[in-house]
Amino acid sequence: MASTPETMPDGRPAIGLIGLGAFGQLAARHLAPHADLTGHDPHAPMPDGVQAVTLAEAAAQPVVILAVPVQALGEVAAAIAPHIQPGALVIDVASVKLEPMRILRETLPAGTRILGTHPLFGPQSAAQGVAGQSIVLCPEPGVDPECAASFLRERLALDVHLSDADTHDRTMASVQALTHLVSKVITDLDLPPAPYTTRSFELLAEAARLVSQDSDALFRAIERHNPHAADLRRRFFEAARALDKRLAE
Amino acid sequence: MASTPETMPDGRPAIGLIGLGAFGQLAARHLAPHADLTGHDPHAPMPDGVQAVTLAEAAAQPVVILAVPVQALGEVAAAIAPHIQPGALVIDVASVKLEPMRILRETLPAGTRILGTHPLFGPQSAAQGVAGQSIVLCPEPGVDPECAASFLRERLALDVHLSDADTHDRTMASVQALTHLVSKVITDLDLPPAPYTTRSFELLAEAARLVSQDSDALFRAIERHNPHAADLRRRFFEAARALDKRLAE
Repeated sequence: MASTPETMPDGRPAIGLIGLGAFGQLAARHLAPHADLTGHDPHAPMPDGVQAVTLAEAAAQPVVILAVPVQALGEVAAAIAPHIQPGALVIDVASVKLEPMRILRETLPAGTRILGTHPLFGPQSAAQGVAGQSIVLCPEPGVDPECAASFLRERLALDVHLSDADTHDRTMASVQALTHLVSKVITDLDLPPAPYTTRSFELLAEAARLVSQDSDALFRAIERHNPHAADLRRRFFEAARALDKRLAE
Repeated sequence: MASTPETMPDGRPAIGLIGLGAFGQLAARHLAPHADLTGHDPHAPMPDGVQAVTLAEAAAQPVVILAVPVQALGEVAAAIAPHIQPGALVIDVASVKLEPMRILRETLPAGTRILGTHPLFGPQSAAQGVAGQSIVLCPEPGVDPECAASFLRERLALDVHLSDADTHDRTMASVQALTHLVSKVITDLDLPPAPYTTRSFELLAEAARLVSQDSDALFRAIERHNPHAADLRRRFFEAARALDKRLAE
């Protein structure tokens, strides 16, 4: 990777990681071999390979990753804004993209390079590693994502997709809002274990199991902070009602 | 396998296969190496290894397999009843068990040995073979399922589960009625292909894809002819409504 504003002379980027919840911990583990990591989270333990610093110090790094729930992003963005260095690259990892990128654009200093990302994996689905997993990058207009994309491809072996925030949120309404809705309903049914099952049931149960370990904050982010999710839910319930009616005939 | 009323002196059972739709064809393919098969279906081609015979001839075999939709079972049972031999073993393969077994009991001659079965696989899920797939056997009281169970285990490498019809239908309301309901709704949504997805979505989409190739008759059998399915659907819709309400708050 060429030396750019966000890399140190030795080619290792200096990254301030703000938020070390379930996803921040996963990110720290996979980034530590490839970057100089500083971290800040008053509510979580600092993992190996991450130097604990103040919020101001983490926010003053050339690359800042905000691994906080979308519900907390406004407050965190306001707190870090005074410490962001000119031209710094600020990355969020929320499961929706329109709202977080609007918040960062409205709150961070002009000239901050904003790169929205959505890693399409989490601690459950990446339990065996992140290689081959997908990540979506939604750069703000004028931000070149190529340096970050190369890093993610070459160091972490991720499958990198470039998109814009609206296309991302539309796609994720079908993909994630649907999956989480169905999985949550199945989990809520609290079905007894079955002595014999079918292949399609096993697939459905595995999807529900993966999703059941995600936080409620993530579920609400996916369903409530994606402007296209409500429409997808409406269509799902309409299709379900139509099917139920057809079966009652 | 010891010689029993349903096996020929050479140990190969003589089986009359009535109905050669999607499942009958699959059954014929896997039974042909191990049994003398005669078959009857005026609406389907007779596969290799199956000798085409009249309905009366197929029904007069020591073992009769009825691979017809549950919706047609009453009519077929009435048509074969005069031809069933004393002590013959009559097997159905419907995805529900209470209703087909009641129909057979009420329609076939006294002394007919009735063995309800539910192969938990089909042409899609057994595309790579049936070994390791599951089948549920629900023998009528007084019918010893062991000979059939040994055959299925030893010749077809199936995982054999013994159950009673009510336990089966209760279990399948959770397993199959739920899976088919969710999969049908997802298929009905007709979502555009997504350029990037998550692991849990892929599992859900694969479940929907497996189910989408099943016939509408099978879907209706699972949802309408299982007396416990309506309750499962009601609970599913209640849980979905509760979740939708919680998201709207």
